[in-house]
This record gives sequence, C-alpha cells and structure tokens, in this order.
Amino acid sequence: MDCRIIKSPGENTLAILNRRKGSKEELGTPDAVGLVQGKLIEMICATDVAEKAVGVTIEDIRGSCPQNMILLAIFGDTASVTAAIEEIKRREKNGQW
Amino acid sequence: MDCRIIKSPGENTLAILNRRKGSKEELGTPDAVGLVQGKLIEMICATDVAEKAVGVTIEDIRGSCPQNMILLAIFGDTASVTAAIEEIKRREKNGQW
Amino acid sequence: MDCRIIKSPGENTLAILNRRKGSKEELGTPDAVGLVQGKLIEMICATDVAEKAVGVTIEDIRGSCPQNMILLAIFGDTASVTAAIEEIKRREKNGQW
Amino acid sequence: MDCRIIKSPGENTLAILNRRKGSKEELGTPDAVGLVQGKLIEMICATDVAEKAVGVTIEDIRGSCPQNMILLAIFGDTASVTAAIEEIKRREKNGQW
Amino acid sequence: MDCRIIKSPGENTLAILNRRKGSKEELGTPDAVGLVQGKLIEMICATDVAEKAVGVTIEDIRGSCPQNMILLAIFGDTASVTAAIEEIKRREKNGQW
Amino acid sequence: MDCRIIKSPGENTLAILNRRKGSKEELGTPDAVGLVQGKLIEMICATDVAEKAVGVTIEDIRGSCPQNMILLAIFGDTASVTAAIEEIKRREKNGQW
Repeated sequence: MDCRIIKSPGENTLAILNRRKGSKEELGTPDAVGLVQGKLIEMICATDVAEKAVGVTIEDIRGSCPQNMILLAIFGDTASVTAAIEEIKRREKNGQW
Repeated sequence: MDCRIIKSPGENTLAILNRRKGSKEELGTPDAVGLVQGKLIEMICATDVAEKAVGVTIEDIRGSCPQNMILLAIFGDTASVTAAIEEIKRREKNGQW
Repeated sequence: MDCRIIKSPGENTLAILNRRKGSKEELGTPDAVGLVQGKLIEMICATDVAEKAVGVTIEDIRGSCPQNMILLAIFGDTASVTAAIEEIKRREKNGQW
Repeated sequence: MDCRIIKSPGENTLAILNRRKGSKEELGTPDAVGLVQGKLIEMICATDVAEKAVGVTIEDIRGSCPQNMILLAIFGDTASVTAAIEEIKRREKNGQW
Repeated sequence: MDCRIIKSPGENTLAILNRRKGSKEELGTPDAVGLVQGKLIEMICATDVAEKAVGVTIEDIRGSCPQNMILLAIFGDTASVTAAIEEIKRREKNGQW
Repeated sequence: MDCRIIKSPGENTLAILNRRKGSKEELGTPDAVGLVQGKLIEMICATDVAEKAVGVTIEDIRGSCPQNMILLAIFGDTASVTAAIEEIKRREKNGQW
C-alpha cells in the first residue's frame, strides 16, 4: 500500500478528487487529505480502520478503470489525517487485518 | 486468494461494499464481513463453498474495472463468517475444487 | 487454462453466473457446472470442443472487465460436464487446436 | 501473435463471435474460422494481409475489455482460411510489416 | 514505441480504424497508413511531431479498453507517412521530447 | 513518473487532449504543455504541486481505460510550465510527498 498526505490541498486537487469519488456529497475545504492506494481488499480494510479513527471523513476515489484498485481519500485536520494514516500503516505492518 | 475478516464493520466500509455489490438488496449491519479476493474462476468456487456454509450471506463486489477479479463479501455473525472463510482456505489448500 | 467442476451448485453461485453471462436465457438448476478460464482465443476453441460434446449447455461469463479473458461455463449432468472438461484438457495437452 | 483454426465451428462458437464482433452484419455458417490474437497494431497489419487474401471475410472481435488487444476472426472455406493464416504467420516471421 | 506502415490499406483495415477513431470525420482512401503504439504520454508527443510534418492527417485509435495506450494512425501519401514515422523514430531515439 | 514538455503544441495534439480531459472548459492555445504520467496517487500529489506554481492551468487526461493511471496536462507559457515540471521532479526526487 502507498500512503501520502497533502497539506492545504489546492482547488484543482480537490476538483480531481471530487470528480472521481463514490459518494455524491460535495467536499468542503479540508486542512489535509490522506491518500492510500492498494488492492481492493486492502482498501476496504483500510477504510474500516480509518473510519474508526477520530475526526476524519472517508471517500473512495476511482481511477477511470482502476481494475481491482481504488484510492482511499481521508479528509480532516492535519493531526487527525496523520493519525489515521499512521494507524493504517501500523495495522498493515503488524498484519492486524 | 487473499482472505480477510472485518469485525463490526463501520458505516463507510459497508457503504463502499453496498455501492459495488452485484445484487440490489440493501445490507443490514452484520457482525462481521469476510472478504475473499482472487481470480474469477476461484471466486465462483469460493461462493459455492461459502453458500453451503451455515448462517452467512454472500455478495460479489466489483472494483470499478476488476478485470477477471471480483471480491467476495461474506456477511454474518463472527463465528459463521470465520467458519466459512476457514472452509474456503481448507478447500483451496487441499485442492478440493 | 484453468478448469474446475462444481457439483450441485448453490443458488448464489448460479445467481453470479446468471448476472454475468452473454446470452439472456435463464439457467435452470443444473447438476454440475464446469468452468474454464483462459485467453479469449483459447476460450473460443474450448467452446467449440464443448459444444460438440453431448448433453451440455455453454455460456460465456464476463468478469466486469476481463481484458482478453472470459470464463466459459458448461452446464449439464455431472457425467456430461466431466466428459466435456476432460476433452478440453486432452485437446489442449495434445495441441489439437 | 497466437493463431488457431476451427473447422466446422458449432452454433455456440459462432454465437460468441457474433455477440462480440465490430460490424453488424450477421455471420452465415462458414466452413472454418481462423483466429489471430495479438497487440492492436499487429492485428491491424494482420487484417490488411488477410483481406488481400482470396475468399475470406474478416471481423474484429472484442473481449469485454481487451485493453489493446483485439481478436481477428477470418471466415471462409478451410483452404482459404488456412492460406490467410499461413500468410499472416509468414509475414510476421519475416518482419514484413 | 512500435511503428508500422501499411501501403494501400484494404477496405476492412480502414473500416476497423474508422470504427475506433476519436474524431468523427470519415476517412478517405489514403495511399498509406502509419501506425504508432505506445504509452499515452508518448503518443501525445508523437502526435505533435506528426502534425508538424507535411501532407499527413492524424487520428487517435482506441482499442476497446486500451488502458493508457492509444494507437496513432497517420494517413497520407506513402512518402509523407514514411517521413513522419521516421521523424517520430528519430526524436524518440535522440530523446528530443 | 514520466514528464515531458511540448512547445507550441499543434491543433491535433490539443484536440486529443481536449477530447480526454476531465473538465469541460475549452482549452485556448497555450504556449506549452507539460505532461506527467504516473500512478493515480502520484498524479494527485503532482496536481497539488503544480497548482501551487504560478501561471499554469491543470487538467487530468483520461486514456480510454487508464487503470489507476491518469495523465496530468499543465498548460501555460513555456517558462511557467517548465518551472512547474521542475518542481514536480524535485519533490519526487526528494520524497517530499
């Protein structure tokens, strides 16, 4: 799994995420966006970890034809996004899913 | 084949599964979700094993464009889901399909 | 090519096959299902072998986006499905296509 | 490139080809079908070789999502189809495209 | 990148290109067709080289689902198409894009 | 990640980009186009870097079915596009995302 954090994401960056996300709710202007990319089965486990974290919103992002891959976007303040990403990495490393 | 079990899956996790499943019946709030990912031919055999197990419901989950891959989601109480996943692993290991 | 046989396929297994098959005729409840997965060119040759066998019905099954792969499903009584699968394996082994 | 010839193709085999071909003209019942599978650029060159051969009809066949792959189907009497396939193989071997 | 030139392309060859091209203008009957296949980023650079060449028309050709691949078709008289293809090869070799 | 710059892009090149871009705004005739191709997660980070650069416009470009790949196109005067591309390369090299 690849994990990245974008602080103060710009307008175009949010527009690309908005055009490709699964739900239809408009994004606001989050402080930070965490991104996680991997196999579908890993992404669903990562979603579950992230949504049990505090203070973040989660969206699945489609590539145009992302095979069995989706991208997970985690929105929130920088500390919460960082904490969620750290928890995902910790679980993956320890094989706790 | 990759196999995972999520206990007490959160709301977003179920929403992602709901948006991508083959049937149109709404999921309830299962105790656990078992996930199995592999080649289409393996998934169909795993479906057959899982549905002959007791106390679980089965759905095939699409990635946006999962080539010959689908993800199998097995819903039910934790013990039943675990038993179904164990049976799938046992069959695969013994080449019984 | 991968070949598998499912005896007395369950309801969900048949539902997944029904949702993904090329023709629009409803499947009944066959005794057995033979599955063959490989490259498109191989699948078309396997179709031709299977349909010259006795007592089986054939369907091509789509993954959501199976590149050049399709899955061939062969329905019928267990003996006929087994015979068709054996003939496909024999032809492939002997390079008779 | 993979090349195969099916003699006296059965009804299901022709039905699968019919469902996936590019043009809308119905196929008759040809004596033989030649199949060629490779990269898109090779298939277009093979099409050009085949249609300059005598006594054959050509169709491009889609897998459900065949990336940059299409399958070329060459219909006609057995001798003509064999001659067209041989010419395609000869050109590829000699790098004459 | 793969590059090929077809001289006096036949009717079926042009029909396959016509069915898959990006623009809606009907092709005439060009003397020659140059084909270039590579990654999307390379194809866009090759398009720019080709359209600055003299006497050729350019089309992007889709495979059914060509991932990040498109095929570039360059139409014109044999000398112009050959010159355009040579310029594309020269640029790629010299890393001039 | 692959990065390229096209100076004074031609009409066909812009037409191909126009047909495949995510937003619906018509492109003008930019002095230069910068292209960046990589994994979806990298592209979103590159978008954020590019849009914090001065004097450029950004579009995501779809291949027909680009899996988890998109192509980023950066439009503007030659100096601005070059600066944005350099910043993207620098960040990637230093692992600053």
